Amino acid sequence: MKRDFVSIEDFSNDEIEVLFVIADKMQSLLRQCHGVLAGHIMGSLFLEPSTRTRLSFEAAMNRLGGRVITISDAGASSIAKGETLADSVRIVSSYTDILVLRHTQAGAARLAAAYAPIPVINAGDGGHEHPTQTLCDLYALRSTKGRMNGLRVILYGDLKYGRTTHSLALALGRFGSDVLCIAEPGLEMPGYVRERCAAIPGVSETEVELAGADTVFGPGGRRGLLFSRDPDAWAHSQGRLHLDRVDCDAIYVTRLQKERLGLEDGKKGSSLPPVDVRFLEHRAFGEAIVLHPLPRVSEIDPAVDRDPRGYYFQQAALGVPVRMALISFLLGREAMRVEAPVPREERLWSGRRCANPACVLATASYQEALAWTSADGRDRCAFCDHDLR
Amino acid sequence: MKRDFVSIEDFSNDEIEVLFVIADKMQSLLRQCHGVLAGHIMGSLFLEPSTRTRLSFEAAMNRLGGRVITISDAGASSIAKGETLADSVRIVSSYTDILVLRHTQAGAARLAAAYAPIPVINAGDGGHEHPTQTLCDLYALRSTKGRMNGLRVILYGDLKYGRTTHSLALALGRFGSDVLCIAEPGLEMPGYVRERCAAIPGVSETEVELAGADTVFGPGGRRGLLFSRDPDAWAHSQGRLHLDRVDCDAIYVTRLQKERLGLEDGKKGSSLPPVDVRFLEHRAFGEAIVLHPLPRVSEIDPAVDRDPRGYYFQQAALGVPVRMALISFLLGREAMRVEAPVPREERLWSGRRCANPACVLATASYQEALAWTSADGRDRCAFCDHDLR
Amino acid sequence: MKRDFVSIEDFSNDEIEVLFVIADKMQSLLRQCHGVLAGHIMGSLFLEPSTRTRLSFEAAMNRLGGRVITISDAGASSIAKGETLADSVRIVSSYTDILVLRHTQAGAARLAAAYAPIPVINAGDGGHEHPTQTLCDLYALRSTKGRMNGLRVILYGDLKYGRTTHSLALALGRFGSDVLCIAEPGLEMPGYVRERCAAIPGVSETEVELAGADTVFGPGGRRGLLFSRDPDAWAHSQGRLHLDRVDCDAIYVTRLQKERLGLEDGKKGSSLPPVDVRFLEHRAFGEAIVLHPLPRVSEIDPAVDRDPRGYYFQQAALGVPVRMALISFLLGREAMRVEAPVPREERLWSGRRCANPACVLATASYQEALAWTSADGRDRCAFCDHDLR
Repeated sequence: MKRDFVSIEDFSNDEIEVLFVIADKMQSLLRQCHGVLAGHIMGSLFLEPSTRTRLSFEAAMNRLGGRVITISDAGASSIAKGETLADSVRIVSSYTDILVLRHTQAGAARLAAAYAPIPVINAGDGGHEHPTQTLCDLYALRSTKGRMNGLRVILYGDLKYGRTTHSLALALGRFGSDVLCIAEPGLEMPGYVRERCAAIPGVSETEVELAGADTVFGPGGRRGLLFSRDPDAWAHSQGRLHLDRVDCDAIYVTRLQKERLGLEDGKKGSSLPPVDVRFLEHRAFGEAIVLHPLPRVSEIDPAVDRDPRGYYFQQAALGVPVRMALISFLLGREAMRVEAPVPREERLWSGRRCANPACVLATASYQEALAWTSADGRDRCAFCDHDLR
Repeated sequence: MKRDFVSIEDFSNDEIEVLFVIADKMQSLLRQCHGVLAGHIMGSLFLEPSTRTRLSFEAAMNRLGGRVITISDAGASSIAKGETLADSVRIVSSYTDILVLRHTQAGAARLAAAYAPIPVINAGDGGHEHPTQTLCDLYALRSTKGRMNGLRVILYGDLKYGRTTHSLALALGRFGSDVLCIAEPGLEMPGYVRERCAAIPGVSETEVELAGADTVFGPGGRRGLLFSRDPDAWAHSQGRLHLDRVDCDAIYVTRLQKERLGLEDGKKGSSLPPVDVRFLEHRAFGEAIVLHPLPRVSEIDPAVDRDPRGYYFQQAALGVPVRMALISFLLGREAMRVEAPVPREERLWSGRRCANPACVLATASYQEALAWTSADGRDRCAFCDHDLR
Repeated sequence: MKRDFVSIEDFSNDEIEVLFVIADKMQSLLRQCHGVLAGHIMGSLFLEPSTRTRLSFEAAMNRLGGRVITISDAGASSIAKGETLADSVRIVSSYTDILVLRHTQAGAARLAAAYAPIPVINAGDGGHEHPTQTLCDLYALRSTKGRMNGLRVILYGDLKYGRTTHSLALALGRFGSDVLCIAEPGLEMPGYVRERCAAIPGVSETEVELAGADTVFGPGGRRGLLFSRDPDAWAHSQGRLHLDRVDCDAIYVTRLQKERLGLEDGKKGSSLPPVDVRFLEHRAFGEAIVLHPLPRVSEIDPAVDRDPRGYYFQQAALGVPVRMALISFLLGREAMRVEAPVPREERLWSGRRCANPACVLATASYQEALAWTSADGRDRCAFCDHDLR
């Protein structure tokens, strides 16, 4: 049976561990893998522009000796002739061996996976998921810290629209690492992500006031949100977290997603200080690597580029071996021999609609909406994970 | 001498038969052909957007191990710097081994073939021809029915702007199959196509009133146009064709070509019923496959996708092996050993112009307009086949 | 240490000679080189549209068996998300083995070379340089005349914005060939290019009045500018150059660069006659080949296409083997064994700015502006070669 990679939940922890062993091998043989996928074609369907992700996937497929056919501009495509996504996917997947899809709508990749007889990789479906970015983030942590469990990671910046932080928080929780969220005020992590993080067995959510960080944040009352298996180990008591007594492993910085900021958020700039040399002098960050999904605008000072802790460009480079490993596995060139996750139970729900206006089901003619029931007993859309109406 | 594929007339029936034997082989060895065209490059020049056709050609070239360089957006190209098509073609053909051209103007592919020293494939020249689509249509019929002669095919929908129906009608006539045209009122098959169909030796044109099809079309007077070697065999007498006594082999559906509908046609919707499950219950369609050049909008109900007679997605998939066979042949990798068509006689006509405002000669600086004389003694443009002024 | 090709000055004369020997070999083995760069990827970053140059580079890389990942439309790229060129270059160069950059700003390629750990090729940086075009121009002269020294070449047309003429004039001077500039009035060669040409050891600049060319230019006073090691050998005395007593080796024609003509130049057409059959009947051009960087608009009559002296389409075709040779050399597949140029001395200049508003440093956050001192003692920007403020 074919496997897809639409959500980070589609792979078990064990599978991710094995995938990274394959990625290690790919990285050491970068220019020697060109016989692996000779004769195979990737369909690279970027119906929302994303140069970096597209080039990273195309580089990965080419390093493996496969070929790529590309749509990088939805406007210029006959997909504009009124065709449904399901039809487009069926046609392109009949020309190719694996499909990489970027789309503006949440759930689009799951829909594609339902219609394509070949493996589908989600390269970003609106504000929903971008799971290969999460793989790269985890792989960067593993490459520098040697492990993915027992880490302390700060998520920093726009945690509302910066969707990469959502998947990363969940994945770190699954692997047994802790996350401290320091959000731009008004751009805090959404409730549904918080719920899912706090639902991870052993993890609790704690609102904290940051102390001992005035040299970084200025005096007075910056607040954070801690997801941890052991909150007290964070030098945390009575609602105060003493950052000057904590050793962080990484700070993951995001830019304000200006293209997603609606009117409600205005055009305000960041009130959080940028990560610069002075910022990194704080003792919490002595051993912390600085990560960023890129593109960076002004949230990280260019002077940090020359600091060995500034790891964001290496992080981007790692996207190629990680995606090579993923493609090789999905096309059956690498075997895992570890347990896959148990698929969640889904069932047809006719007569109901997804409540998410950004969901692909809001406009698509897909009649067979699938639902699953989350731990709290609510029926959710199997495509975008929002509540059903 | 190089061969081009600009019109379906460029290949003899025997050559098309052999080409499909090659396509059969390509299809069975889809991922094993990547040594065939190593070192060769296709220029994929899509000066009018067409994602599906472009991806199908690029997949075919990649399956063969060749490489592709692409222009998929005329606006972004230096072709916008005022260069003639002839110059662009000469340059791109000097970089490549075979050229695939999509263009907005009729006759553009013939012009390109005249200037390029390498084989040129017409991937659609305005409203004129789209011959590889016709190859795919024929190959889909042969794949399901085992032959291309003695078939009964209904062409259904917009037969005026749906150019794929024009070439298909002519090709089916050449192979000895019959065609019944059921057009959206106002979008009937144009006169010059009817003339060419009726000029095929043995074929006669008959206007008919459809009977026995009220469950499909509703009561009263739907009309059709029959091109047949034996019209009476269609349960046809006194101007009435009893559809309920006919076994059709295929119904070929087209969408309203809204992007080509001018003001004269308004924005009217279709008066023809969509092909749905109920439609296919009519006894004429018991063994009929449903074909469509895609993209499909609403002329075929999605429920038909699950009916084994709904063959349009397979039809699209067959585009890859058919184009692999075509490219291999034109680049000398496959030999035919059957007779090619005798080229029609053409001669220079100076001092005259093509009467077709959509012809590439209307704007190009090509001074050497060629003409040929059709069976009825009229001088026609050798590029777009319209009358000369 | 990696080599870049950002300026024609980056290669010594000896290196260019050896490169062309490699190009000869590439041309004779065009379809047999596909094992040379297996496993290697070129990043083709065209942030300003340029179809011809892009396709030529992509064809070259594909002929060598390498792969290409492409950005051909800056608008559709996440580079529009406010990222600096330096960041974009660092990321794309981490996916690839060699980078080809086209950019709107002068100095962009030098900036890219400073940030990329891989070889960078300048495919045109605004109005500054386009050195691979110069290689093609030189290679076309060598292919037809057998040498690059002792030639007499006329540069004809827009010599102000036609940047390819700037590099060519300098390169011909370096190789010991003479150049006669016949410019569209108002579009004469800029002062800084004249200075650099006249600074070549042995070369002097002479303003001349053209005589004996009335059949070409009409009666009365067309003027030219001669860069020569021996001006008198051009049948030149008392300010008059008798064109009817000169044998030219080539006439290099450029179009009016309408997209770069600002308000100051208006929208005037050319006052120079086009190169046509009658033009070429003049005895100065009996053995002269006609070159053009293309696209051609109306400055060369299409009738010249059929004249064996019309060499511009062959010139374009030679771009593929020349670029194959360049890529192979930069990626270490071909060794030169001749002396490279001595790099000019550059040093950091803080607190000053480049005076050129079109320079990449005018907007980039690159803090480490480098300067060099030209022969006349002026400090110049190491990116765009203009004076520093």
